[in-house]
Amino acid sequence: MSDGFREIVRQLEALDLKNMYKNDFFLTWDKTGEELAGVFAVADALRSLRERNISAKIFDSGLGISIFRDNSTRTRFSFASACNLLGLEVQDLEEGKSQISHGETVRETATMISFMADVIGIRDDMYIGKGHAYMQAVADAAEEGYQDGVLEQRPTLVNLQCDIDHPTQCMADLLHIIHHFGGVEQLKGKKLAMTWAYSPSYGKPLSVPQGVIGLMTRFGMDVVLAHPEGYEIMPQVEEVARANAAQSGGSFAKVSSMDEAFRDADLVYPKSWAPFAAMEQRTQLYGNGDFDGIRELERKLLAQNAGHKDWECTEEKMALTRDGKALYLHCLPADITGISCHSGEVAASVFDRYRVPLYRQASYKPYIIAAMILLAQTEHPAAILRALEKRGAERRKG
Amino acid sequence: MSDGFREIVRQLEALDLKNMYKNDFFLTWDKTGEELAGVFAVADALRSLRERNISAKIFDSGLGISIFRDNSTRTRFSFASACNLLGLEVQDLEEGKSQISHGETVRETATMISFMADVIGIRDDMYIGKGHAYMQAVADAAEEGYQDGVLEQRPTLVNLQCDIDHPTQCMADLLHIIHHFGGVEQLKGKKLAMTWAYSPSYGKPLSVPQGVIGLMTRFGMDVVLAHPEGYEIMPQVEEVARANAAQSGGSFAKVSSMDEAFRDADLVYPKSWAPFAAMEQRTQLYGNGDFDGIRELERKLLAQNAGHKDWECTEEKMALTRDGKALYLHCLPADITGISCHSGEVAASVFDRYRVPLYRQASYKPYIIAAMILLAQTEHPAAILRALEKRGAERRKG
Amino acid sequence: MSDGFREIVRQLEALDLKNMYKNDFFLTWDKTGEELAGVFAVADALRSLRERNISAKIFDSGLGISIFRDNSTRTRFSFASACNLLGLEVQDLEEGKSQISHGETVRETATMISFMADVIGIRDDMYIGKGHAYMQAVADAAEEGYQDGVLEQRPTLVNLQCDIDHPTQCMADLLHIIHHFGGVEQLKGKKLAMTWAYSPSYGKPLSVPQGVIGLMTRFGMDVVLAHPEGYEIMPQVEEVARANAAQSGGSFAKVSSMDEAFRDADLVYPKSWAPFAAMEQRTQLYGNGDFDGIRELERKLLAQNAGHKDWECTEEKMALTRDGKALYLHCLPADITGISCHSGEVAASVFDRYRVPLYRQASYKPYIIAAMILLAQTEHPAAILRALEKRGAERRKG
Repeated sequence: MSDGFREIVRQLEALDLKNMYKNDFFLTWDKTGEELAGVFAVADALRSLRERNISAKIFDSGLGISIFRDNSTRTRFSFASACNLLGLEVQDLEEGKSQISHGETVRETATMISFMADVIGIRDDMYIGKGHAYMQAVADAAEEGYQDGVLEQRPTLVNLQCDIDHPTQCMADLLHIIHHFGGVEQLKGKKLAMTWAYSPSYGKPLSVPQGVIGLMTRFGMDVVLAHPEGYEIMPQVEEVARANAAQSGGSFAKVSSMDEAFRDADLVYPKSWAPFAAMEQRTQLYGNGDFDGIRELERKLLAQNAGHKDWECTEEKMALTRDGKALYLHCLPADITGISCHSGEVAASVFDRYRVPLYRQASYKPYIIAAMILLAQTEHPAAILRALEKRGAERRKG
Repeated sequence: MSDGFREIVRQLEALDLKNMYKNDFFLTWDKTGEELAGVFAVADALRSLRERNISAKIFDSGLGISIFRDNSTRTRFSFASACNLLGLEVQDLEEGKSQISHGETVRETATMISFMADVIGIRDDMYIGKGHAYMQAVADAAEEGYQDGVLEQRPTLVNLQCDIDHPTQCMADLLHIIHHFGGVEQLKGKKLAMTWAYSPSYGKPLSVPQGVIGLMTRFGMDVVLAHPEGYEIMPQVEEVARANAAQSGGSFAKVSSMDEAFRDADLVYPKSWAPFAAMEQRTQLYGNGDFDGIRELERKLLAQNAGHKDWECTEEKMALTRDGKALYLHCLPADITGISCHSGEVAASVFDRYRVPLYRQASYKPYIIAAMILLAQTEHPAAILRALEKRGAERRKG
Repeated sequence: MSDGFREIVRQLEALDLKNMYKNDFFLTWDKTGEELAGVFAVADALRSLRERNISAKIFDSGLGISIFRDNSTRTRFSFASACNLLGLEVQDLEEGKSQISHGETVRETATMISFMADVIGIRDDMYIGKGHAYMQAVADAAEEGYQDGVLEQRPTLVNLQCDIDHPTQCMADLLHIIHHFGGVEQLKGKKLAMTWAYSPSYGKPLSVPQGVIGLMTRFGMDVVLAHPEGYEIMPQVEEVARANAAQSGGSFAKVSSMDEAFRDADLVYPKSWAPFAAMEQRTQLYGNGDFDGIRELERKLLAQNAGHKDWECTEEKMALTRDGKALYLHCLPADITGISCHSGEVAASVFDRYRVPLYRQASYKPYIIAAMILLAQTEHPAAILRALEKRGAERRKG
């Protein structure tokens, strides 16, 4: 048995994770600190198994259902990878091909796709006030179906991005940070700048900045949120961040200058997003079928963005950070100036210097998703992981 | 070994199922009574294994090909679930993405997708006179490919809904009924009302009412088919129903009133469908590319439907049934008045009261499909099932 | 142990295949003769296992990523079959559903989809000068990701058809030929006619004729390439063919008459393709967004094709071949006169007579792809194959 693996599993055993079993993963701030630690431990343990070519299959058969209400590459492949790692086959519910429009309710669809589903992953981040509610309705239906004896198993809902949070992204980001700095206890007192950045597109989700401030404030970090006036995020998530910081011994502050946020930062996360109020308005316009209004809003938002092209993560800005060497973070894909757009979120030279760590950051997502599934689907995760290692079935022969 | 499971397998062993091996499933009335009993027994056995967390995989690898020539949620997921349960990976033939239009024949496509296919599931219900013929052509090609030594295995064709029958739906319905009433022998003398119901959409397939009367008449039930004038189904299926009833000691009758059908019924299946003659006409119009004609037909059919809004399964109608407590059946999704449409097939209060049994009804479909596959792919199904139970491999660890 | 299998594995053991391990498959002429022999040996060995119902899974979990930049049926299903045979689950990257347009680079996408990918299969044959370059970029990214420690495994790139070669098709064709004539040593001195044929469509890829002359010239055959003036293929591939022929003791010749090519041929491969120069022009027009130019080119090409309707594989032409019995080859689907088009590549009676061998020809493709994967993913293929046979796990129970 590998020493690292043994230590991870030992730590896992000490955590109170009983409320994760037969449960869902919606928002990181629904979960206790021990539960988040449990996700990280399982993610690390699964990665250790895979790196040593040991099978991590806990399912012999079963389905992982994915519902993507927005285009996706990396989340789609992360979910597929996580399911495959554990032994589940992915079946995508493509609403266009389904009879969902045919008048059935969310409850009914959720039940109909769940007869042999062990996990349902949903991405629904487009409309403020809708995504989280939709996921809740699906999870309620799954629970009801299980209680009524219609479903033989309780499918786990995993939030693959909603209008409020993007937990699989932010947990992957955090696991990357933990490993980068050499342990969760190293995060205390580190300054993280979550800042808006200019993009020539508009309407990017708020779930990343919200998820980041809602999660990173729990580990004693000094989290600074920076954006131009008019790019406010959901006020209730700022409340969460404030309460977290008070409890963790860190801090949460808002500033209106990228320079101020970057100054002496240990980590920077410059990323574009749309104003919360505008997204609320857009949701309403869509609801009313007011397409002229939508076009007008789009025009206005692009013009508003264009007034803030100086919010770019340049070499000059990076030089303001601690020793000029803050860890640059992004959920990808980034709008890279001169590469993917004329003028964007980040200078090409900055992005290029951090390419390998950025890809490593992304590499944690499949393991985070798999860990969420494993903790919801098994009552004794430490015992399961030990048994997987002991069995030592090769993932790939030869 | 579970007593229930042992009993099911014992019954299975007594049945003559040899003609199911290396064969297809097109229409229930192609099959003997013993063969239908065999499907039910295997479905129950597979469900028992899964409920006890025992793997039912009989394939280590292999593909289940699906061809959906119409949108589908529940049949798509039922097929995927059935394949996954047995160890097959689903590969969907999306005709839009394929080169099928590129001049190749059905025989060629069927062969090209079948090199490692153990099952091919097809839904093709839109055009009268086409779906069944298409499936037969695919199955013939698979048989030829196998006989010619081009295919190493004989893929099984499973009809996931054609223009004539919907065997996986109706068999699932019947297994639900059998369990509801406590055994197939309890069905003798029960009255089942298969009735048309109003829907604001048009062109719904006839395969469910046809499948229901073609199957349910084989078990000594008194089956009544009710619809307004002009909503006739295929005459040859009525012939099948009549012959079945004569042989089973039940009856088959046609009435033109929903009330009459519901009176003292033990089971009711109110569901909209399109007139057979109109569907024949539509097929011809599509064949001629006569889109004006299609629009005109659509307009006429909707107007015709609208004359029969009183064909709704209301509380008043339900009160006419035996003790006011008939088992309400539907293949879902239903057009629910005030929920999914202004005025539809069923009152919201009726639907709601039967929601759990309706979902349970749907839950049998994956097992029915899996049973059809297992019986076509294994020569000694009872021995296989016993071996699966004895091995007792966990479906999910922990 | 089967004698045939034992002999295949013994031959495999004698080959130098070390450069295939952790490598990709782009073009057949990148590979040594021993490496091609290795692919054939593994393909035959895998087929032998499957025919004897022995599992050939070398992966317990893992993904096979497919990227199809053109519609496809048979290659899609061949890739899916190969992955499934070895234990990989296929995950399709549909560019339309992804965020690829969202400004990310090929390198980034390739990394993001590869975290748990063991193989990436790409079809990109539409634009001259693009497909091969795109695949190379994906493979480079996979190698970099592996070297940087971002990817725990080295995904194998398999060229499922590019603008230059179609190695999985041509290797399947060749394995069919080898078995037809009773061994690779029987090919010496055989005459193969790779000829253009008329089709009412235009813009068909050049990868098949190019792949055929680039591969078949390595085995001592007399390969004749025939086409009307104006249908030239890539000059650099003709150079490859010429060099191959010189080394193998065969010959490579170009003629401008189908009759001349067919005379005394042992094998004929009549198939339509577009002129190389026109495809270069089309690529440029697309690059410039010149849609009027594209339409004009299309019109011109169809008119050019129509001047060569006599390039059809008729009974008269077949009578010119050796004893009138040359083996007719096609990658399918073919344009069959009177069946899939008014006037096409081949007469219906010729096609029909060769239907079974044509389907057998196609049946080798899944095994060829699986062999390419196995050789890239395992260091000791002979040992792995022996172990699979010894284990003797049933593919299908019963």
